[in-house]
Amino acid sequence: MRKIYLSNTPRQEALDIFLTKAEIPRRSEKVSLTESLGRVTSEAVFARLSMPGYHASAMDGIAVQAEKTFRASDQCPLKLKAEVDYCNINTGGPLPPGFNAVIKIEDIQLLKDNSVEIIAPATPWQHVRAVGEDVVAGEMIIPAWHSLRPPDLGALLAGGITEVDVLAKPKAAVIPSGSEVIEPCRERKRGSVPDFNSTVIAAYLLEWGAEPAVLPIVPDEPEKIRAAVITALEKFDLVIINAGSSAGEKDYTFAVIEELGEVFFHGVATRPGKPTILGQAKNKPVIGLPGYPVSAYMSLEWFVQPLVCRYLGLPVPKREKLSVTLGRRVVSEVGVEEFVRMTVGYVKDRYMANPLTRGAGVTMSLVRADGLLIIPANSLGFEQNETVEIELYRPQSEIHSNLLAAGSHDLIIDLIGTAIKERDSLMSLTSSHLGSMGGIAAIGRDQAHLAGIHLFDPATKEYNRPYIKKMLPDKKVRLVNLTYRMQGWIVPKGNPDRIENIEDLINKKLAFINRQKGSGTRVLFDHLLLEADLSPGEIKGYEREEHTHLNLAAAVAAGTASVGLGILPAAKAFNLDFIPMVEERYDLLLSDAFYKSREARLLFNIITDQSFQWKVEGLGGYSMRDAGKVIDV
Amino acid sequence: MRKIYLSNTPRQEALDIFLTKAEIPRRSEKVSLTESLGRVTSEAVFARLSMPGYHASAMDGIAVQAEKTFRASDQCPLKLKAEVDYCNINTGGPLPPGFNAVIKIEDIQLLKDNSVEIIAPATPWQHVRAVGEDVVAGEMIIPAWHSLRPPDLGALLAGGITEVDVLAKPKAAVIPSGSEVIEPCRERKRGSVPDFNSTVIAAYLLEWGAEPAVLPIVPDEPEKIRAAVITALEKFDLVIINAGSSAGEKDYTFAVIEELGEVFFHGVATRPGKPTILGQAKNKPVIGLPGYPVSAYMSLEWFVQPLVCRYLGLPVPKREKLSVTLGRRVVSEVGVEEFVRMTVGYVKDRYMANPLTRGAGVTMSLVRADGLLIIPANSLGFEQNETVEIELYRPQSEIHSNLLAAGSHDLIIDLIGTAIKERDSLMSLTSSHLGSMGGIAAIGRDQAHLAGIHLFDPATKEYNRPYIKKMLPDKKVRLVNLTYRMQGWIVPKGNPDRIENIEDLINKKLAFINRQKGSGTRVLFDHLLLEADLSPGEIKGYEREEHTHLNLAAAVAAGTASVGLGILPAAKAFNLDFIPMVEERYDLLLSDAFYKSREARLLFNIITDQSFQWKVEGLGGYSMRDAGKVIDV
Repeated sequence: MRKIYLSNTPRQEALDIFLTKAEIPRRSEKVSLTESLGRVTSEAVFARLSMPGYHASAMDGIAVQAEKTFRASDQCPLKLKAEVDYCNINTGGPLPPGFNAVIKIEDIQLLKDNSVEIIAPATPWQHVRAVGEDVVAGEMIIPAWHSLRPPDLGALLAGGITEVDVLAKPKAAVIPSGSEVIEPCRERKRGSVPDFNSTVIAAYLLEWGAEPAVLPIVPDEPEKIRAAVITALEKFDLVIINAGSSAGEKDYTFAVIEELGEVFFHGVATRPGKPTILGQAKNKPVIGLPGYPVSAYMSLEWFVQPLVCRYLGLPVPKREKLSVTLGRRVVSEVGVEEFVRMTVGYVKDRYMANPLTRGAGVTMSLVRADGLLIIPANSLGFEQNETVEIELYRPQSEIHSNLLAAGSHDLIIDLIGTAIKERDSLMSLTSSHLGSMGGIAAIGRDQAHLAGIHLFDPATKEYNRPYIKKMLPDKKVRLVNLTYRMQGWIVPKGNPDRIENIEDLINKKLAFINRQKGSGTRVLFDHLLLEADLSPGEIKGYEREEHTHLNLAAAVAAGTASVGLGILPAAKAFNLDFIPMVEERYDLLLSDAFYKSREARLLFNIITDQSFQWKVEGLGGYSMRDAGKVIDV
Repeated sequence: MRKIYLSNTPRQEALDIFLTKAEIPRRSEKVSLTESLGRVTSEAVFARLSMPGYHASAMDGIAVQAEKTFRASDQCPLKLKAEVDYCNINTGGPLPPGFNAVIKIEDIQLLKDNSVEIIAPATPWQHVRAVGEDVVAGEMIIPAWHSLRPPDLGALLAGGITEVDVLAKPKAAVIPSGSEVIEPCRERKRGSVPDFNSTVIAAYLLEWGAEPAVLPIVPDEPEKIRAAVITALEKFDLVIINAGSSAGEKDYTFAVIEELGEVFFHGVATRPGKPTILGQAKNKPVIGLPGYPVSAYMSLEWFVQPLVCRYLGLPVPKREKLSVTLGRRVVSEVGVEEFVRMTVGYVKDRYMANPLTRGAGVTMSLVRADGLLIIPANSLGFEQNETVEIELYRPQSEIHSNLLAAGSHDLIIDLIGTAIKERDSLMSLTSSHLGSMGGIAAIGRDQAHLAGIHLFDPATKEYNRPYIKKMLPDKKVRLVNLTYRMQGWIVPKGNPDRIENIEDLINKKLAFINRQKGSGTRVLFDHLLLEADLSPGEIKGYEREEHTHLNLAAAVAAGTASVGLGILPAAKAFNLDFIPMVEERYDLLLSDAFYKSREARLLFNIITDQSFQWKVEGLGGYSMRDAGKVIDV
């Protein structure tokens, strides 16, 4: 087999050439007006009927012949006879033949003999809506390539239009490929990879106005991929293959597209998203997307959205931009453009942004991202505190009212987030899992509103306060208790290694899994070691770090570790056993400015709320006895 | 019957109190993940499974035990035996038990006996995606009250979630009322009013995330309206009655809501939209909307959209704002807030905005509007050339590339608009029907890019040039021929009055319908009068003005006039007869700056294009023999 190398074509260049060479052929279809909301007209629409269809009264009152009223005046009222000189008329009613003006009901005096008296003349055509005042037959109501909005439907109906010619939605085939890939809802076996990419790709296509179909999964066999693409090319306007787009031994997408048509590009100089294939076959665009989810979605947005938008005659929607201060340094390699997912929050009069993981396999980074930092190919990245412009995934107004929680993560923080939204739907809470020390540092640098911390100081036997004093000696902050929670050994179900205390880890040579430096749990474990007069070197796996309780428990559940230190809910999530060790204090550290805000009041209301506390304690391993208690710092 | 008066409650005050007193009760439902795009979660969603579900390779290569590779170096390569010291592994493949690192395929040397050689040690867990790296079981994937986006679906599927609890769409009943109202697609009789409002109201509700249903039309009878509302209150979360919301004799909406529940407000101090009723019954919001379309849609947006958004926990979307220069004075009454629909275009480095008709019955004003000028209650309005802020209906980028055509309107201008979009989908063309003189003035004031004009000067027997010289003596402009077209008498089918020339209008005392002052057709008619030595006073209906050829033809078709002067396509639109009189020259006046632009090149390409010219001439009454010819000014 011939060796394939990926090119490093700049993204914009690849897009420009792709759009020049590939096109979705336009088709139109007739749809009923009531089904046409959001559809794009394929030609201009002209009115068939006029609205109003007759001269109509614009008021409740009487229809008159203006010429006969010219003598009426204050001094000399004029009497009009019913059905001869005037007719009653309601708003919208047709002007009777021979009549040419309307007098408002307020301006007439009804007499006993059913005649009326007026004290001012009517001018011809006053209070009359002329035929066609709203829409006149023959007039263009809607231009071609216009996305239909609610009032457009009204004008079309007014003009007698009940069916419109619209652009047919481009049909897009999504072909999932991979011998290890299974449908996303099937039971997962070790080694099988559920295909959730196709659902996401289809959802994007739907949002952009295409009509996606996810075809059956094709194994990594060139003939089967070829056959699937050939079939798709017959029925669809556009074919997307996911994945096999790289240059590995089992990546056949390139060869198949090249055989059936033409590959314009294989590889773009952007990360994530590099192993993208842009080509065509049978005059239809064919795209090979990378397998890693973030890469696939980014690449889809770069290359497929513009194709679909151009088909529909719509501009590619632009994201709102925002100037932000970088909370951390973000480095990048020269020669490669990089798209970095960022969290953003408004703290102390500025927008602070921090990078999320860059792993192309981490879908959650897209879920959590508030925006996107694009680092140009010629840049080495940006320094901490530098001001950069990012593209927003959420409206700025939402980000503005987003509370940033940093520090140690606990399930209660998520519950607080839900409770906040329940009370004020325009607020939200985002948490970064930085560990307790990271949380104190974030409050110190004004990068978060609150931080969860649980740091035991062996010297003073006190929680949190000694660390705050040391790390933030000059900063005015507030400390508030959130909960007391149990830390303990997380071990496989049934505790097969019969762990009781820290000595068992060494004696039984168990594979331990640790938490990252700076986390409260790490501090606690080091303290337990010290108390037992043991050294880290004696613990097998001491260097292996996980960043959350849940990830630690996952490693134990997967059997790659035998024990770790953590909290009860993490053990429960994986149906593991939990050997309680220590009850620790978990506090919230707040900046003084935030402590005084309306949002902090809301936070206090929530954590001191009886039903909220019951909910937390119901999880097991928590005591809310001091929740909301302010602790002197 | 008791007399009802509308109150003048300020809009914001009415909204605040309405939102305090009325609420759509929240309901949730379970939907399949594939149906959940755009839906709003009703509770936080936690992962059921981890992704990856096992320790997986992040690379194509071999799995090894890191501890066994520590001796490998450049000088001293290490040999690993297949299936003992290493196993082949692909990206995503599960790490075999006992192995804890992956070496990339590029970094190994395959030997003949199927063993491999490495020249660098592996560190433990290198190139391994730990279980739960993307999503870890127990983790919160999506918070409560979050509108689901494509990547969210991926993360949920990755976490083993195939169904989600979402807020049920609030069910909204739309009750059309009015004895004269008929379904929009039924054949129209004189005096019947097609109900297109319900379709528009339902479309808005759908866009905002509600589930609308249009109920049968109810006549203006209080018992029937009451019965319809009672039935709707049983099945729906929110009831909208359109119309009968004012204080007229047949307006029963107020009385019905008051009887069944409570009316909070009847009448808001805003135009259009004043006769709005806000109330509740059976703890469900009940809204009475005005009958005039623009009033109804504005009121719906002010009061119903915030209710629906609050139900869904979403902010009310804000429109983009833009600073514009007013092309005309906009006056307003003190004490009433006014919403004025505006057209906007970017001409000569600034955004120029002009008001559209304020008629609440003109749906087309909403179709044509680019934005909305809100005049506060305490303001008398704004002066010409004043800078004001408006809310945009279309993105600023679209408005920026919008060509503004002013002056006399002709169907060809609409055809040019379509052709422009065909060639560059991001461009568009909007035309204001100002008449020829209005067009020259608009070019003079830099309020338009081009203007269609056809003004005959009797003194010089020349078209257009004398008027431009007089009206714009110092301005550098360009004149380009578009077409020659026939003007003639528009008369009922069969020409019952046997009109041949202008004298017939007087001799036969026919009801004439005129065009507005400043229009080319009015100038032509005045010239014909002068030539025939007649005076305006002799023409019956000389004062009655219509603003377009089509509206003039509509009046003739409706029988309120017997004859008017106009062009063939207008007569054809109403199946009227056309008696040709004069072939006139119709030119395009361009500012010099626009003449030199890329957009003007596109315009020239279009009007000199053979197939475009055939299309125009095929309409009848047009000759394109000089289209694109530049005329000295």
